Amino acid sequence: MQSSERVEQALEQALAEAAGTGAPPLLAAALRYAVFPGGHRIRPQIVLAVARACGDADPKATDAAAAAIELLHCASLVHDDLPAFDNADLRRGKPAVHVAFGEPIAVLSGDALIVLAFQTLARVLDRKPRQLARLTGIVARAVGSPGGIVAGQAWESEVAAPLVDYQRAKTGALFVGATLAGATAAGVDCEPWRALGAAIGEAYQVADDLRDVLCDAEELGKPIGQDARRLRPNAAAQLGVGGAKARLSALVDAAAAAIPDCPGAAELRTQIRAQTQAFFPKQLARFAA
Amino acid sequence: MQSSERVEQALEQALAEAAGTGAPPLLAAALRYAVFPGGHRIRPQIVLAVARACGDADPKATDAAAAAIELLHCASLVHDDLPAFDNADLRRGKPAVHVAFGEPIAVLSGDALIVLAFQTLARVLDRKPRQLARLTGIVARAVGSPGGIVAGQAWESEVAAPLVDYQRAKTGALFVGATLAGATAAGVDCEPWRALGAAIGEAYQVADDLRDVLCDAEELGKPIGQDARRLRPNAAAQLGVGGAKARLSALVDAAAAAIPDCPGAAELRTQIRAQTQAFFPKQLARFAA
Repeated sequence: MQSSERVEQALEQALAEAAGTGAPPLLAAALRYAVFPGGHRIRPQIVLAVARACGDADPKATDAAAAAIELLHCASLVHDDLPAFDNADLRRGKPAVHVAFGEPIAVLSGDALIVLAFQTLARVLDRKPRQLARLTGIVARAVGSPGGIVAGQAWESEVAAPLVDYQRAKTGALFVGATLAGATAAGVDCEPWRALGAAIGEAYQVADDLRDVLCDAEELGKPIGQDARRLRPNAAAQLGVGGAKARLSALVDAAAAAIPDCPGAAELRTQIRAQTQAFFPKQLARFAA
Repeated sequence: MQSSERVEQALEQALAEAAGTGAPPLLAAALRYAVFPGGHRIRPQIVLAVARACGDADPKATDAAAAAIELLHCASLVHDDLPAFDNADLRRGKPAVHVAFGEPIAVLSGDALIVLAFQTLARVLDRKPRQLARLTGIVARAVGSPGGIVAGQAWESEVAAPLVDYQRAKTGALFVGATLAGATAAGVDCEPWRALGAAIGEAYQVADDLRDVLCDAEELGKPIGQDARRLRPNAAAQLGVGGAKARLSALVDAAAAAIPDCPGAAELRTQIRAQTQAFFPKQLARFAA
């Protein structure tokens, strides 16, 4: 099965109960709307790619980990778009959840997706309970306080946020969670996989900053210029477009170099290069030397 | 150790990392503010009482389950009080989290508390992984969709909400989760404990409806008359105060009768009677025959 199909199928299975019979209809519809159709599914693809490079000894565990990471990502998008945060009307080219379903259902959808992520791990891994404890810890650290995406978002409410802590938590943590979860699901020691997740996460952040400056809203599927509007730090604004592009290239190399020895290292290296190269906004062609 | 101390200590341990070094200061403060000082801690007390009646074979598991249930309850209060829901300025006699810390931090605090509940179970139960899978499932069903408190709150966004589903999910589910979790933490089959949780949950709902009608805001520590204002079903409005009081008495009896055979059944019966009797609002004395 193609890895993209694996991700969609794992998400379908996760949502089957939560958005199924007996659920309040609006909530059920909003849960599906928040998860399908997806964006690039970069994070769960990384879970799968790392697990495959490590032998993918337990594909069901891998799929559950990939689904959990993506559910938490979707939850963070729904809450980030709320009027109290980015107040973004558009997400993945369609109205944001709070625009389509109202603010109460948007808050609750995010909550339900967070719960569902942990429930999915427990449901699939009830026969591999040691993995369950490890994966739950990895996923929780990637999303909670003090260092996960929720904490990252909370740094935006601080007058003086340390830039490194902010970006590491807001963007990097879930990428680190994805590489650690992929290795853990495959039954190997996850710590050597931390640097890869951190490099991909930083590359993604720089690319996102470039897109916020360069793209138009229609192409991006969400509002642009948000960082300047919200006085958020932006690598393209700080380093210039050329500087940010150079930084992104260096991070693509760093990610490829960070892959630990494993059976599928060569294939993974190719895949990570392709995936992180795809981060480069198309508009950067204009800035080529 | 007194059970009330046990609950506070378990919550302190749960919050130590999330609200500790490295966390964004406002988020850390809001997490503590949302959890301490608590209300009556009824739900975690039920976890402890049920576990004790079953022998409390693994007190650390019991404490983690109690903390997880209370963290999820606190999360639901923070989100329920938001302007998009009850827009309640007052909670436990002090400003609600969104009033004290702003709406973004309130949304994020709720999210972080949900994550922390599952993280706490995984941290404490990493050596008892079978219990971990079971407890995670119990807790997730009590709080998520389709039948947990998040779904219960979502029924309020439906034009026609089935009353039984609404109340069972919004109030009952976490009480059921508490009795199931207490039994599971003690290592016994949890299903016989479901009826007790359901009876306590229904009693709590009727008592809450009575308080919403009878009490003043200062005594209650939160706004009153919310149900009528929000066109929410209210047992005291439907049955009259006398009818609701009779229903509450019947539910106290039903709870006591629902306790399964177990080593500490007699003591638990006394305790459940005392706890549910304490649900009766003081103002009901006026309505005594």
